Amino acid sequence: MRTFILYLNKARTDEKFNIDDLPSSGGRMDVLCRAVTSSLWLSHSLREETKLIGVLNGPPNPPVSVYFNSNTMKFVSPDERSISFWIKKALAQIGKTTRSGIYAERKSFQEIIKELKDMPIYILHESGKNIFEVKILDNPVFILGDHIGIPKKDENFAMRYAKEKISLGKKSYLASSCISIINWILDVNLK
Amino acid sequence: MRTFILYLNKARTDEKFNIDDLPSSGGRMDVLCRAVTSSLWLSHSLREETKLIGVLNGPPNPPVSVYFNSNTMKFVSPDERSISFWIKKALAQIGKTTRSGIYAERKSFQEIIKELKDMPIYILHESGKNIFEVKILDNPVFILGDHIGIPKKDENFAMRYAKEKISLGKKSYLASSCISIINWILDVNLK
Repeated sequence: MRTFILYLNKARTDEKFNIDDLPSSGGRMDVLCRAVTSSLWLSHSLREETKLIGVLNGPPNPPVSVYFNSNTMKFVSPDERSISFWIKKALAQIGKTTRSGIYAERKSFQEIIKELKDMPIYILHESGKNIFEVKILDNPVFILGDHIGIPKKDENFAMRYAKEKISLGKKSYLASSCISIINWILDVNLK
Repeated sequence: MRTFILYLNKARTDEKFNIDDLPSSGGRMDVLCRAVTSSLWLSHSLREETKLIGVLNGPPNPPVSVYFNSNTMKFVSPDERSISFWIKKALAQIGKTTRSGIYAERKSFQEIIKELKDMPIYILHESGKNIFEVKILDNPVFILGDHIGIPKKDENFAMRYAKEKISLGKKSYLASSCISIINWILDVNLK
């Protein structure tokens, strides 16, 4: 299993956002939607054994984490509107799984890290070690921030459990682009 | 300059689509929107010197090509709805540049290839040569298809001018993922 965790500073934690205005009313919920597409989809099908957890830290009642699993997801299309429709449903019934397989839980970034602490955790960061110099172990967990970044306190917490801080180079990429690149690096077994 | 050309088989060629239903009413216009995001955006800014041309071949009056240039684009956000809003505007006034810098022209895939024939052209295809075995020259042009693929006739035409058919590996990726990966390969000068 490959796991991506995306920390979202402002993403709304209830269903009261407009799927026709994800950037503003959703607190950049579009960032999460694009991360779902790039983590779980191939051209004609979903990937296998890939998970994304979006950790939402916006109003009204943070944190809430939303779970997407390529093995169980259904009825979802790879466009932002379809994905956000199901996120909204999941946020309207926190703790219950939607028909799509997507579900939300009242869990914080730190709680998620603790649950995954036995897996090899890598934090994506421009200042990290070049990914070519790092051996990525099986069942990796990759932690990414949104455009604002992971708060220092949470990053320090994750660092206690992480194998390594890794970098894709000097440029700072969109979370969705980072995920596409990492998926590909692992697919082609790039050294 | 880096140029991406995305061939879209069904994308609508006038402004009469609903930006709240890009997959169906837009003929998978969402595929183009995500390609725009992954080709032109870094995390906090637009890239420099990067262009995307979307070649739309859907109803009512194909072909129409839509141009996105990172050097001149403005007022556009990286979410599908914002991008599609400007595509709609461009399609409502074909031949004129919108305030965003995005514009549309009545040009076919083959006409675009002919205009770019002096640049090194690479066609992305699962059956192509592994990208690691190909030297990508300066000012490259990358041709990508949507989920349906480029029609044989057009692909054969492009092959006359292309340096090489290249592949990112055995898996078939979303166009937006291919673009993220290629941008990164060129950014880090991966051999």
